[in-house]
Amino acid sequence: MNQRRLHSLDSLFRPRSVAVVGASREATSIGRRIIQNLLDFQFTGKVFPVNPKADVVHSMKCYPRVSAIPDAVDLAVIVVPRARVLEVVRDCGKKGVRALVVITAGFREVGGDGIALEEALVREVRRHGMRMVGPNCMGIASTAPDVRLNASFSAAIPEPGPIGFVSQSGALGEVILANARGLGLGVAAFVSMGNKADVSANDLLEYWEKDPRVGLILMYLESFGNPRKFTAIARRITRRKPILAVKAGRTAAGARAASSHTGSLVELDIAAESLLEQCGILRASSIREMMSLARAFATQPPLRGDRIAIVTNAGGPAILATDAAVSQGLKLADLTETTRRKLARILPPEATVGNPLDLIASTTPERLREALRLVAADRNVDGVIVIFVTVVSIDVFEIARAITSGVAGTRKPILSCFMGKHRTSEALAELAQKRIPVYAFPEEAAQALAAMNRYRALRERPAGEPVSFSVDRARAQRAVDRARRDGRTALTEEEVEDVLAGYGFTIAPSNIVRTAGEAIDASLALGYPVVLKAISKKLPHKSDVGGVKVDLRNADEVGRAFLDLKSRLAGTAPDLRVKVQKMVEGGREVIVGVSQDPQFGPLLLFGLGGVYVEVMRDVSVRIHPITDADAKEMVRSIRGLPILQGARGGHPVDLRAIEQALLRLSQLVSEIDGIAEMDVNPFIATERAKDCRVVDARIALVPVARRRQSSPR
Amino acid sequence: MNQRRLHSLDSLFRPRSVAVVGASREATSIGRRIIQNLLDFQFTGKVFPVNPKADVVHSMKCYPRVSAIPDAVDLAVIVVPRARVLEVVRDCGKKGVRALVVITAGFREVGGDGIALEEALVREVRRHGMRMVGPNCMGIASTAPDVRLNASFSAAIPEPGPIGFVSQSGALGEVILANARGLGLGVAAFVSMGNKADVSANDLLEYWEKDPRVGLILMYLESFGNPRKFTAIARRITRRKPILAVKAGRTAAGARAASSHTGSLVELDIAAESLLEQCGILRASSIREMMSLARAFATQPPLRGDRIAIVTNAGGPAILATDAAVSQGLKLADLTETTRRKLARILPPEATVGNPLDLIASTTPERLREALRLVAADRNVDGVIVIFVTVVSIDVFEIARAITSGVAGTRKPILSCFMGKHRTSEALAELAQKRIPVYAFPEEAAQALAAMNRYRALRERPAGEPVSFSVDRARAQRAVDRARRDGRTALTEEEVEDVLAGYGFTIAPSNIVRTAGEAIDASLALGYPVVLKAISKKLPHKSDVGGVKVDLRNADEVGRAFLDLKSRLAGTAPDLRVKVQKMVEGGREVIVGVSQDPQFGPLLLFGLGGVYVEVMRDVSVRIHPITDADAKEMVRSIRGLPILQGARGGHPVDLRAIEQALLRLSQLVSEIDGIAEMDVNPFIATERAKDCRVVDARIALVPVARRRQSSPR
Repeated sequence: MNQRRLHSLDSLFRPRSVAVVGASREATSIGRRIIQNLLDFQFTGKVFPVNPKADVVHSMKCYPRVSAIPDAVDLAVIVVPRARVLEVVRDCGKKGVRALVVITAGFREVGGDGIALEEALVREVRRHGMRMVGPNCMGIASTAPDVRLNASFSAAIPEPGPIGFVSQSGALGEVILANARGLGLGVAAFVSMGNKADVSANDLLEYWEKDPRVGLILMYLESFGNPRKFTAIARRITRRKPILAVKAGRTAAGARAASSHTGSLVELDIAAESLLEQCGILRASSIREMMSLARAFATQPPLRGDRIAIVTNAGGPAILATDAAVSQGLKLADLTETTRRKLARILPPEATVGNPLDLIASTTPERLREALRLVAADRNVDGVIVIFVTVVSIDVFEIARAITSGVAGTRKPILSCFMGKHRTSEALAELAQKRIPVYAFPEEAAQALAAMNRYRALRERPAGEPVSFSVDRARAQRAVDRARRDGRTALTEEEVEDVLAGYGFTIAPSNIVRTAGEAIDASLALGYPVVLKAISKKLPHKSDVGGVKVDLRNADEVGRAFLDLKSRLAGTAPDLRVKVQKMVEGGREVIVGVSQDPQFGPLLLFGLGGVYVEVMRDVSVRIHPITDADAKEMVRSIRGLPILQGARGGHPVDLRAIEQALLRLSQLVSEIDGIAEMDVNPFIATERAKDCRVVDARIALVPVARRRQSSPR
Repeated sequence: MNQRRLHSLDSLFRPRSVAVVGASREATSIGRRIIQNLLDFQFTGKVFPVNPKADVVHSMKCYPRVSAIPDAVDLAVIVVPRARVLEVVRDCGKKGVRALVVITAGFREVGGDGIALEEALVREVRRHGMRMVGPNCMGIASTAPDVRLNASFSAAIPEPGPIGFVSQSGALGEVILANARGLGLGVAAFVSMGNKADVSANDLLEYWEKDPRVGLILMYLESFGNPRKFTAIARRITRRKPILAVKAGRTAAGARAASSHTGSLVELDIAAESLLEQCGILRASSIREMMSLARAFATQPPLRGDRIAIVTNAGGPAILATDAAVSQGLKLADLTETTRRKLARILPPEATVGNPLDLIASTTPERLREALRLVAADRNVDGVIVIFVTVVSIDVFEIARAITSGVAGTRKPILSCFMGKHRTSEALAELAQKRIPVYAFPEEAAQALAAMNRYRALRERPAGEPVSFSVDRARAQRAVDRARRDGRTALTEEEVEDVLAGYGFTIAPSNIVRTAGEAIDASLALGYPVVLKAISKKLPHKSDVGGVKVDLRNADEVGRAFLDLKSRLAGTAPDLRVKVQKMVEGGREVIVGVSQDPQFGPLLLFGLGGVYVEVMRDVSVRIHPITDADAKEMVRSIRGLPILQGARGGHPVDLRAIEQALLRLSQLVSEIDGIAEMDVNPFIATERAKDCRVVDARIALVPVARRRQSSPR
């Protein structure tokens, strides 16, 4: 166990003995396959077949049950029929087995009694202090040379390498492993998680965080078990090790009916996207993309800046690489004067010194080597893409050697793109051996380098701190308690004001009136301009029915506006009252809010007011709780940011005031129990933080019944 | 020559004899390669090597010059050094050669004397009525069985098939051909265009339009020669044959400095994107994507609707396919009750009838065949993706046969995704033979089907007609002439009004004043509310300096607003005048305009007013001239469309009035010479077309010097 403290997952990944329970004599059975795979992969410990109906399996002595094995058993792989799983687990517990991999399916995923059976299984596992992968999984593997464990029914385990790979789908796990092998991607460990009844992605991330063999984590995910914990762990890990993920079920989320006004903003998979972004995880949009990016991350040193050079023997592919690189945030490096001068000396007269550096079709290996040496050493260059279209007249192996020797010793990422009919396996082997990934198309090399740049940015961003303001929590709590006592989930105007005021928000002064005269009195008292708003339980979206009159500048306008509201709306809204509110001038309307995601829990939202959010979908979202760095990013990540910064002659607003509003909401959600949705809309952001005002807001509580269910998994 | 009329390009693609001028004895020389390729590809006509220094090349009699060949020569492929090209071309002309392929480089692409040399070359070619591909190209090929021409130095010409492929980069041409071959994509003809000095993409499109062997066109483009002609041809062709294109140089366009206010909108490659969209061309974002889409288009019948079914033996990949399909505009079909009932009978109890239809890992070939037969025949299903992750216990060849027989006879697109370690070449061959494309990843199959759906939509959209309004052209022309006489490129307020009024725009009434009293007089005459605008040559962007005061409701407000403008702006703008304009109420600000693109010529622009265009970049662009269908699409393709349709309780505006405004601008650009840029901003769109008003506008003319240069290439 080296110097490391024994981790509960060590029995999974570093067992000294493995029992395969349900090892059948039939060659095509899964149990037999697993035995075969364990032996083929040269497991360094002992393997014990277990099957009451067999005496010998694969020429090995077979035991009737785990407890009949005379030696200690660290790990049991269970492939017995579903009905026998519990009994086998109990026997394992008795025997002192430390870890289980349950391949057998038919549990939670089939619903009904499968759920109960899975719960019983977990109880049994916990009772004996064991850890379990699965059920309904494909198994696990570790390529650690002192272990060499393939306890899965995949025969496609790749060579040892830096990748920790976890898959929520067995089939995709198999597909990705097969591809990794084909691409020469090395794997440290693999886990097919199945139903994640015990060991979760979070456990694996924590384990791999400390495993020096794992330098890069790949994930295929369909759901997040405990998003808050996931966020905390992943944020920490991605500072040191990149995580690439494909998150499936992007559009399924879109089908979920939006539960409220702000709720509808969180369409499609903005929440998952935000979670991954917040964690510093690089999301790939397809399996192919994840594999393609992994090739760069698994072999190359980190990218230290965004300035790249492209060295090529053909113009077209270099243009494609440039397009892809620049459109994804990379810059073409300005080569130094020294480099340019030296390049000019070695290039043929038809070639011009530039970036992309086109050595033209007839380039020699010597010229390519020298050019690469100069470009890779240039202090203005952070990474290099070398593109070569094979030409029949050139020895392609020599070109490969020119590349490997040209970049030898550099500590910058070097990606290559070898194209055309004459890619020889020798040439590809030379590049593979020197750990230079070879892409089939220039856009893919550029995309991979751009992902390294995204990772650099994610890694370099400030870690952020949670922020706690001094607030009047009791005042907010009293308002919420009052609504609860009355059995309401919607807070009244007054309760909303109490909650917000308790958390340091300033609400634009207003008066609620019932007659035109009262409206005019109120407007005179507040000072012009004012806004009139129709208030009624029958009018949930008052602006959609013309229930808001803005910018009223004198008593005459207020009186007429009041009468207009009354005459148009009193019919449908007999409870109509009118709020007269001081209009906040010279600011920008923004929305800050909280929404509930069934999977992620509370989300914080930010966007510009009105149509910017609802039509233009220009909104940023983070999972609660947020740090000061999150709030900063949220405010700065909307497309409409220049509007807040004073585009087109407007006054810039104090962005810090918006950040604080978001942080206060996050604190509120942490401290006041049962807040489901909040909509501070509009919040008027102004040039000076102290002038910012809440103009309107809604708060909804979690219904009591729902609240009880919502304990995190 | 069959029944077809002889086309000038027939001598290129259907020559009966080919001379290779510059055929060298050295096996690695390009001339020798071309001879070899012509012979290897079994050209059905005669090949004549030409080289004054050789008597025999590749065991064939070699002629000293083309005119020394005793037989007729249809096509000459020229690979002599640059200095000798003109002389060879002259000799070809003398001999009566009909077509040339000039491989030799060193012309326009190297600048300087190369440009002059290319011009001389083109003159010589035209003088003899020849057609020429190149110079600086890789050659051409045709797989027509009665021709079998590989007049290129690529040895990678694929099998015969429906693809016409044109590449502006020789290297990428080679790469794409090599890939096409690997993917089993058949090619009808291939052209490496080189410098396009004579034969252009437009010529090839026109030729392939009538070629029954070509069913699908692939293009790699870096620039458009004559965009207007390209648009006309491509629009027509894409109604019958899909065109897939990779357009490179996307981000180079971004570097071009924006020449004016609206000019800056046309950032990056919006213009190229719009051009392709307008033509019905499907743009692929990478070479890989183009190849991947081509596999579906080249083998499958057209998709007739957007409802697809996914049949799978594994959940994860089906989720990924669903995500990709739905996010790109496809829908998952609702299987009919009959299909569901029949499926329920054949599926194992663990599988549930749904879409995706998961037959689970243990599915048999029989079950898969039956399921596919039922699903493919379902009238609610327009296309099918079948996903199979290979499992060791199943005969993969039988699975492939189950797929091909299950979908045999269906007239819907069927794409497959075969994954995992056990894809056998036999199984892949069975699918390839039955023309079912096999994708490596589910997202790619979904992307290809989504592209077929995009093509369906493009093809089904109305063709559109140019629209001509009855206008006062003379009035507009007079205003432009006046500016020209004065040597101005910027039109005055009055001239702009004349031009716009001449073309049927109604301008919001206004008066230009110099004192507060005059402003109040004007406002009383116009009626409240009014807007005041600072006018000065020193204030080109008046709203950025607070030079616009809106919604002034009485004399008092007008007076105070006037004094404020005066006191703040008169210092920097001694020529300050103020426009008092009737405020158009109850409408929505939009921008309609014309911009010049150096490559595409006039572009029409549409967007919502102010920040929507400048900050949110929510703008639609079409190449001039536009049809009624284009105008309709332009108005409907901005993200902010719901704002015009009355989102959040606003009044919907008459979209047809905006369409007409765009069509009128297009007519104006056609009829009035020298318009460079126009900015109708804002145009107030209202509920009733007749109430729409131009509030502000600018027109700039093309500088006279620039005008002379801008003849289309």
